[in-house]
Amino acid sequence: MSIIDELTAALGQAKVAVDETTMATYAVDQAPVLEFKLPQAVVRAESVADVQATVRACAAHGVALVARGAGTGVSGGAHATEGCVVLSLERMNRILALSPDDETAVVEPGVINGDLNAAAAVHGLMFAPDPASFRISTVGGNVATNAGGLRCAKYGVTRDSVLALDVVLADGSLIHTGHQTFKGVAGYDLTGLFVGSEGTLGIVVAVTVRLKYLPREVHTIAAFYPDFRSAAAGVLAVGKARVQPAIMELLDGGTLAQLDDLHGSNLSVRGASLLLIQTDGFGAAAEAAAIRTVLAAGGAVVTTEASAEAEHLVEMRRHSRGDEVDDEYRVGEDVAVPRSKLVDYVAALETMAAARHVRLKIVAHAGDGNLHPTFWVDRVDNTVDPDAMERLGKVLDESITAALAMGGTITGEHGIGQYKLRWLGLEQKEPVRELQRRIKELFDPAGILNPGKAV
Amino acid sequence: MSIIDELTAALGQAKVAVDETTMATYAVDQAPVLEFKLPQAVVRAESVADVQATVRACAAHGVALVARGAGTGVSGGAHATEGCVVLSLERMNRILALSPDDETAVVEPGVINGDLNAAAAVHGLMFAPDPASFRISTVGGNVATNAGGLRCAKYGVTRDSVLALDVVLADGSLIHTGHQTFKGVAGYDLTGLFVGSEGTLGIVVAVTVRLKYLPREVHTIAAFYPDFRSAAAGVLAVGKARVQPAIMELLDGGTLAQLDDLHGSNLSVRGASLLLIQTDGFGAAAEAAAIRTVLAAGGAVVTTEASAEAEHLVEMRRHSRGDEVDDEYRVGEDVAVPRSKLVDYVAALETMAAARHVRLKIVAHAGDGNLHPTFWVDRVDNTVDPDAMERLGKVLDESITAALAMGGTITGEHGIGQYKLRWLGLEQKEPVRELQRRIKELFDPAGILNPGKAV
Ligand SMILES: Cc1cc2nc3c(=O)[nH]c(=O)nc-3n(C[C@H](O)[C@H](O)[C@H](O)COP(=O)(O)OP(=O)(O)OC[C@H]3O[C@@H](n4cnc5c(N)ncnc54)[C@H](O)[C@@H]3O)c2cc1C
Ligand SMILES: Cc1cc2nc3c(=O)[nH]c(=O)nc-3n(C[C@H](O)[C@H](O)[C@H](O)COP(=O)(O)OP(=O)(O)OC[C@H]3O[C@@H](n4cnc5c(N)ncnc54)[C@H](O)[C@@H]3O)c2cc1C
Repeated sequence: MSIIDELTAALGQAKVAVDETTMATYAVDQAPVLEFKLPQAVVRAESVADVQATVRACAAHGVALVARGAGTGVSGGAHATEGCVVLSLERMNRILALSPDDETAVVEPGVINGDLNAAAAVHGLMFAPDPASFRISTVGGNVATNAGGLRCAKYGVTRDSVLALDVVLADGSLIHTGHQTFKGVAGYDLTGLFVGSEGTLGIVVAVTVRLKYLPREVHTIAAFYPDFRSAAAGVLAVGKARVQPAIMELLDGGTLAQLDDLHGSNLSVRGASLLLIQTDGFGAAAEAAAIRTVLAAGGAVVTTEASAEAEHLVEMRRHSRGDEVDDEYRVGEDVAVPRSKLVDYVAALETMAAARHVRLKIVAHAGDGNLHPTFWVDRVDNTVDPDAMERLGKVLDESITAALAMGGTITGEHGIGQYKLRWLGLEQKEPVRELQRRIKELFDPAGILNPGKAV
Repeated sequence: MSIIDELTAALGQAKVAVDETTMATYAVDQAPVLEFKLPQAVVRAESVADVQATVRACAAHGVALVARGAGTGVSGGAHATEGCVVLSLERMNRILALSPDDETAVVEPGVINGDLNAAAAVHGLMFAPDPASFRISTVGGNVATNAGGLRCAKYGVTRDSVLALDVVLADGSLIHTGHQTFKGVAGYDLTGLFVGSEGTLGIVVAVTVRLKYLPREVHTIAAFYPDFRSAAAGVLAVGKARVQPAIMELLDGGTLAQLDDLHGSNLSVRGASLLLIQTDGFGAAAEAAAIRTVLAAGGAVVTTEASAEAEHLVEMRRHSRGDEVDDEYRVGEDVAVPRSKLVDYVAALETMAAARHVRLKIVAHAGDGNLHPTFWVDRVDNTVDPDAMERLGKVLDESITAALAMGGTITGEHGIGQYKLRWLGLEQKEPVRELQRRIKELFDPAGILNPGKAV
């Protein structure tokens, strides 16, 4: 029996798609596509048993299995590999439990981050990880990428909110890792090993999360600066004042210009760089006041209290990735550097982009030293001339090397996926990579789970 | 050449002790001793190279190696096994770097937690993990046990403050895991795998930590209750008000009586249970006010503002483990339950202790649902009668089973070590344990690193 017949027999026709439209839709995530490959089938699982049956069928046939949440990943982690089965978890989208007293929830992997947050908010709680994609990405995807977000400066990344996991292993068996309690140290931290493993060690079929308290009070500050350097200095100054904002986002001139284009605003007129800060909780007002003082002393033009405009700017920032446009070919990066290196790193980026005639804009989760530079070149009639493509490639390489030289990492939150594999060897030495390969082998000896990704 | 000759040749006499006094001192940590075993040597390493030489010698001779920080562990993780080499890291106690701008530090494993905190405090920073043993335990030991503490309700456990590790593997090679940046998701989370692995996967020789902001304002509340049940209800009420204290400690009547004995205080007269809460940061005053209101409504007698007494009580709590006394045989436990189960669990403990005529006192890191019940029986002329010992053993077993039945864990923060291994199978199913054994095998195929511990 072919794997498709087997899947159809086990799961029913409604869950197994083989039509071209579906397959093309599920073939890629939001990353740059290096090589476009079609899967041989797309399974939309509705239960743990469906997942187990799919994994078992793939194992029996030696077929690669690519797990997929919402496909919003930007590193190609969910890109199809040749002839693989894409296993979509999007239909497993029930919140199985939410305990306001225990401040925990158990969800299926396909639950949208924003939906979990909406359910938690009723009880004064929140699921802290808030990738800018929170309205469209799944909790399972957040777990598999260890997603960050805006407020993780204060509240931590996805790992910090995950207590336990149900995982289907490469042989189709189901295990439970972790603990329902806030703390627990029995045995090795398998939960942490699965978080961020990008579908290469097992399929996450349920997630137990710790919820945090939804802050009642939030203060937002927008600070305009004459240049990026002084804005980055503002980040350090807030740190030096030992005030912990929930959100601290840095937007450069290129990003402001883009937002102006999109929204008809006049941000670029007001400054060459914008620092957006949110404080929250019982101390929000006092923290905001302290921050305003520090920023003003550093030369910023700071919005006054209770600024609706500042709040609006944070919303705009959440959506500042920007839509793909026809006449540009863009690549978004995701490096992190130690915070004191923010200024030097951005200066280095500007120099290399200018030298290679590649355009550049930068937003940064500055509180974490996590930068998202976007590089782009022109595209004419849907094609980029090879010289521009080469220059772009060189700048990307240089941007990575420079981050590493400053003690940084090649991926702060988006993951290695398929796209960043070529740089992993620059960050991690061979013995460490070898250990990771052996962990991969231990969990997936036949190599069917998302091969060629992450490690 | 014998291993001792080899170690002495490689490291010099001053670092290799074989005298009985030293060996006996380094043979056990603070856990109940099941079987007293002497090592064949104690190595006090002073450098990474010393650690590598020791590991290589043990590997060559097939001799077990037990890493040791300060030996304050309470699960027997640092207990010597027969004929092992104990490798003490206590002399590797330099703070290698502390960057106030990056808010990070790099330390050798033997640095005392309190010393790192003192160095960080100068810059308005702190190393958040604060086990009650912070004045005597090492950062390496904190990492190897994933230590908790009082303020981890708000600031997280050791894992949450560790960014990167230098680790000597079982073959003597040195690797570096993690990242210097706050965030980073390249490859599997090896750092998380080493944290809490109790010296069974590798020897931690350097730790890069993220520092948090030392709160300028701290408010402390002491709330006395007529019974434990209403005190535990107070914990949930604070949670329901969605106020996050930094510290939330619950002391039962037995603990109050003991503190009175030790310090001549009159706590027992004032209540049968005490809830100690600390709020910190810019919102500390507002949070404390909100908490006072909630607790008073729940029937507590609450100390007034700026209570020096309440602060003193927190200090007493930090030292409430109590000294060993000759006429009692005590065992301290460390379970965690979902917070809503605090009341039921304590009721169950009281019932089982009474039924078996075993005495009981309880302190809890209540914010985390993490309980430390202490059980004890009389000891006459340094011996415990076998019947009492059996009753004690039964209560311990029952306390574990009850915690698990309520969705809890057998160890919230102290680790499995040697002492809790017998219960691990009750918490984790065979396939999960098998995965852990295979991870152990992957890192330490010859099984020389702290054999018979943790997994
Ligand atoms: C506009 C926009 C903004 C974004 N902002 C952020 C941001 O602020 N921070 C951030 O970190 N990321 C951000 N991202 C990236 C992306 O949204 C995150 O990586 C997100 O966590 C992916 O979730 P997903 O459900 O779309 O997963 P997918 O893209 O479908 O999958 C991501 C990876 O996880 C694996 N996977 C998915 N589900 C499972 C499962 N159940 N079990 C095992 N493996 C699984 C996949 O195989 C793949 O390797 C953004 C993306 C967009 C498009
Ligand atoms: C009074 C008192 C109060 C305590 N309060 C708390 C508390 O509030 N919270 C809490 O979590 N614990 C508490 N503990 C337990 C203990 O202090 C912690 O587990 C602490 O982290 C152990 O540190 P240590 O340096 O003493 O390590 P050790 O006891 O020497 O070792 C602990 C384990 O780690 C391993 N190890 C040590 N160093 C290394 C290294 N460099 N590399 C690899 N493995 C290593 C050892 O082999 C052993 O398995 C308390 C103990 C006491 C005595």
